[in-house]
Amino acid sequence: MTELTLTTFDWVPDLPRGFVRDLRVRWALEEAGLPYAVESVPFRERNAEHFAHQPFGQVPWLTDGGCSIFESGAILLHLGERSERLMPADPRGRSEAIEWLFAALNSVEMASLPWALFHFTGNAGEGPGWKFLDDFTNARLRHMEPVLAGREWLAGTFSIADIAMADVLRLVDRFDGLVPYPACRAYVARATARPAFRKAHADQMAHFAAAD
Amino acid sequence: MTELTLTTFDWVPDLPRGFVRDLRVRWALEEAGLPYAVESVPFRERNAEHFAHQPFGQVPWLTDGGCSIFESGAILLHLGERSERLMPADPRGRSEAIEWLFAALNSVEMASLPWALFHFTGNAGEGPGWKFLDDFTNARLRHMEPVLAGREWLAGTFSIADIAMADVLRLVDRFDGLVPYPACRAYVARATARPAFRKAHADQMAHFAAAD
Repeated sequence: MTELTLTTFDWVPDLPRGFVRDLRVRWALEEAGLPYAVESVPFRERNAEHFAHQPFGQVPWLTDGGCSIFESGAILLHLGERSERLMPADPRGRSEAIEWLFAALNSVEMASLPWALFHFTGNAGEGPGWKFLDDFTNARLRHMEPVLAGREWLAGTFSIADIAMADVLRLVDRFDGLVPYPACRAYVARATARPAFRKAHADQMAHFAAAD
Repeated sequence: MTELTLTTFDWVPDLPRGFVRDLRVRWALEEAGLPYAVESVPFRERNAEHFAHQPFGQVPWLTDGGCSIFESGAILLHLGERSERLMPADPRGRSEAIEWLFAALNSVEMASLPWALFHFTGNAGEGPGWKFLDDFTNARLRHMEPVLAGREWLAGTFSIADIAMADVLRLVDRFDGLVPYPACRAYVARATARPAFRKAHADQMAHFAAAD
């Protein structure tokens, strides 16, 4: 019996494919070697049951037995508690993994996701608003650069913090935002070369392609 | 001996006063009734020791004995593990508090903080970039509205999730962004009427005023 079930959209447009957040969860599950099933909800018509699991009408969510969890960060933390391959067991390593998980999602992605969405929607490159967002993102990347130049993984060993941070930085890289930050780029390359990432990415691409 | 020490800036300009993130930590500590000391680092000249504790050169960080933690979300989670006044002890309540903590910091604040910073910097109100950000923020608020209309606190009882979410929404309210969302406004009013918030807020204002 499969205990863990990941739910994502049945289909998404081409542009976000490979970047939908179920990837973070797939990646963690593959790293941990935990068996899981994947289910789909309609992208176009989001019903009440969808909102009961994910109040913003987004994906993913994970059910673990009778427990349903939304927010990729919360799911990563939950899986981190289940596997030492995802989070160090010693208090210091655990604390580092958790603070860097929040750093990825709150300090870096808060700047970089709007930055990337401005690119997606054709609003990048002009105006004082764009300049502000570009400066905000670069201020974060400038501080990540020496951190990532000095270590292979954020919490000593590979952890949920790296899944979140590498996925956040990968989207910046897609729009060439990491060109001035070679250590950030090398980190993304190192993280995405892992077999668990490659399988998770291929599985997401195949999942959406199957619905075309 | 004081075991918990919160570090914040020695001074900040008028505009962010009352909204610096040490407030989230002060609020949690006051709710839990945990004794703590407050220390300062220079706002203007951020040295290597500052970056060793907080890699982005921001505040706050918390030391708990020999452990130093940055990211307000990670600090809230750490304190939640120490006090049932901050996080329910039963697995379901704990899981809900954690997912809503991430929802506040990743789903809502990712939209609302850039939105507020556009206001702060005079970039609100014009252009397609602004419209995109305003739509992004309202999409999140529209989904928070029925959630907050249906419950007093996010995880059943007051928790770290409410500290994060109320503080995130409070900044939107400052720029009148909650006018179309009465349940969100009532929630902010309810949260900020708590004695622990009022003490935390007054202490932050006094801390920065003392440096003028």
